[in-house]
Amino acid sequence: MSEVQAAQVASIDLNKGETANEDLVDPWNVQSSSATGVDYDKLIVRFGSTPIDDELIQRIERVTGKPAHPFLKRGIFFSHREMHKILDLHEQKKPFYLYTGRGPSSEAMHMGHLIPFVFTKWLQETFDVPLVIQMTDDEKYLWKDISMEEVKRVALENVKDIISLGFDVEKTFIFCDLNYIGQCPGFYQVIVQIQKHVTFNQVKGIFGFGDSDCIGKISFPAIQAAPSFSIAFPQIFNGRRNIPCLIPCAIDQDPYFRMTRDVAPRINLPKPALLHSIFFPALQGATSKMSASDQNSCILLTDTPNQIKNKINKYAFSGGQATVEEHKEKGGNCDIDVSFQYLKFFLEDDQKLEKIRQEYTSGELLTGHLKKELIGVLQQIVGSIQEKRKAITDEVAQEFMTPRKLKFDY
Amino acid sequence: MSEVQAAQVASIDLNKGETANEDLVDPWNVQSSSATGVDYDKLIVRFGSTPIDDELIQRIERVTGKPAHPFLKRGIFFSHREMHKILDLHEQKKPFYLYTGRGPSSEAMHMGHLIPFVFTKWLQETFDVPLVIQMTDDEKYLWKDISMEEVKRVALENVKDIISLGFDVEKTFIFCDLNYIGQCPGFYQVIVQIQKHVTFNQVKGIFGFGDSDCIGKISFPAIQAAPSFSIAFPQIFNGRRNIPCLIPCAIDQDPYFRMTRDVAPRINLPKPALLHSIFFPALQGATSKMSASDQNSCILLTDTPNQIKNKINKYAFSGGQATVEEHKEKGGNCDIDVSFQYLKFFLEDDQKLEKIRQEYTSGELLTGHLKKELIGVLQQIVGSIQEKRKAITDEVAQEFMTPRKLKFDY
Repeated sequence: MSEVQAAQVASIDLNKGETANEDLVDPWNVQSSSATGVDYDKLIVRFGSTPIDDELIQRIERVTGKPAHPFLKRGIFFSHREMHKILDLHEQKKPFYLYTGRGPSSEAMHMGHLIPFVFTKWLQETFDVPLVIQMTDDEKYLWKDISMEEVKRVALENVKDIISLGFDVEKTFIFCDLNYIGQCPGFYQVIVQIQKHVTFNQVKGIFGFGDSDCIGKISFPAIQAAPSFSIAFPQIFNGRRNIPCLIPCAIDQDPYFRMTRDVAPRINLPKPALLHSIFFPALQGATSKMSASDQNSCILLTDTPNQIKNKINKYAFSGGQATVEEHKEKGGNCDIDVSFQYLKFFLEDDQKLEKIRQEYTSGELLTGHLKKELIGVLQQIVGSIQEKRKAITDEVAQEFMTPRKLKFDY
Repeated sequence: MSEVQAAQVASIDLNKGETANEDLVDPWNVQSSSATGVDYDKLIVRFGSTPIDDELIQRIERVTGKPAHPFLKRGIFFSHREMHKILDLHEQKKPFYLYTGRGPSSEAMHMGHLIPFVFTKWLQETFDVPLVIQMTDDEKYLWKDISMEEVKRVALENVKDIISLGFDVEKTFIFCDLNYIGQCPGFYQVIVQIQKHVTFNQVKGIFGFGDSDCIGKISFPAIQAAPSFSIAFPQIFNGRRNIPCLIPCAIDQDPYFRMTRDVAPRINLPKPALLHSIFFPALQGATSKMSASDQNSCILLTDTPNQIKNKINKYAFSGGQATVEEHKEKGGNCDIDVSFQYLKFFLEDDQKLEKIRQEYTSGELLTGHLKKELIGVLQQIVGSIQEKRKAITDEVAQEFMTPRKLKFDY
């Protein structure tokens, strides 16, 4: 039974008698009825992936000789597929590459969008490997009521935001589908190979497409799958067709790569490995994902220090009690407090985070204190990105987007 | 009601009570139960196109100042969509361009494959306009059990055959999808625009696709549609997005262009005009189309003079009577005699053809005479193409396939 079939069967099993409690997680929707958000343990069973356990984290530290990223230790990247194989390769000094991406739906990226990129940057530096970043501007054109010119403009803005995180131009290739597919016959040829080996029935089962969906949506999964194969980048990887790929992404993107892993052996190419992250919660709470289309649900990379302060103070859902007295007596709930959740993502100091957790849980600290701490952290991160962003001209972006051999020994 | 809807409704109406008699005509199948072949009058009603009448033929002669091609006068091109609009443009000295193509399924092209190209060459010379020729190697890879490398090799052989017909390199651009889509962002961008505006329901209705078809087939119609728009060729047409297009093709390709004409106004581009040909019959008779996969059903461009002679003598279906005596008494039937049908396609001399028709019908001429005449005509045509084919090197083919501005005043 393939991973795709297993995931479908598991999904049917889990649906029995508990449909009402089931979280909705696919590339276009993330919804949970629980205040603590999506049940990730159940999701691992449903998707058929493997939990990231202490053993794997320790092996990553052993193999790389570096401490694991906080996202690993704090359970933000919580699930994987075949990460041990990637570590085997690294131990054997054999190459692999990283692939991640973004659907450029809104001009201003939000903090949630940063998660895969922050982690990917750490992977790139820690393993010293090349990276390709796909901007699915074609996807956004197909799914949204937006013109092609506008989606191309937004994609370029997003590319500049991503570059601002500090990627190494010598080891990073960023591409927008609407341009790159028309720049590289090898990329289109891989897409067609994938499209030959996936039926409408399969994408219906995996993505829920229906008969009234446009044929662009129906064939799109092959386009997100294609960068999983090094042969799609002949100039980048010197024509090597079998360099394995590791994909860090949020768990909602897994359906694309379950499909990719199913197709890979049939077109004689290696299956990509995966590292899955949890979702970044909206300011209003963990029941839904942050969305840049609702500006009050998220902190944008374009927000001023004052906007950050006001949004956190006004909207960040509190896990504290109704009155100070009650809070001091019963304590706060870190599992639903959005400020604490955000600190878990962005406060680097492990000891400080643990201290805040204990003192908030005991009732010693009020939500106001957590908000103040978070505002400082976010203002610093966003400010630093905005500062770097100023130097990212069209020329710099063009450099990242030029197909070329990356600095790496294949 | 759109042309696509009209064609579907007409098809349903015609199916009532006469399903058994209905010819099967779509891009992958042509089958007729009648010895005289497909009923083209019915097809015009079903597809919602317009017959090419004497008035249109006379107007073509008037507008161009040249005699109409025998394919027009003999009803080989018998149906059209908006050809009068193209003539209006030509009268106003406004530009249009020609688009035709081929699915490179077999290494050796047969005489039937020549029909659209022979006629397109005449159109190009008569109207003095640029021409794009699409080789759908991606289609053949998706539909057939063939490797990508093999289909690319076959496509290049076919390109050389087509060039051998004598196209003008300064006004002709030939492209293979598997390469060109990866060479031209503008082409991919038009494909995505079309794919956004066609649903699975629509391709199901038009092409009969089902849930177990691969997503490559389902989205392919957009790829055959795209060359109908000049914006798909920014280098060829100097970036002009609205140059109207005229498509000469066999009537079985019309479903692609009904779909294209439906989409065009929704993506703000001009509808292509069409000229439709009848099918070239198999040697065994007009009940089916010639097929290169059955070598005894057709004359190949690679056949020797002797092979041509033997195939015609052995396989060409005769409309004559069982014995010479009976034939002289009752006469032959030109409507089902394959040799006469082939002469109608390839014998240029109108008077000679008419004389043969009369004398065969009256019983004066035997099938053997027609076969002898036909063998001479085919040996001359095939020999001349083979002679020209020798000079078509990879370099010559490459010249035709290089994206470049064609010699034309836009």
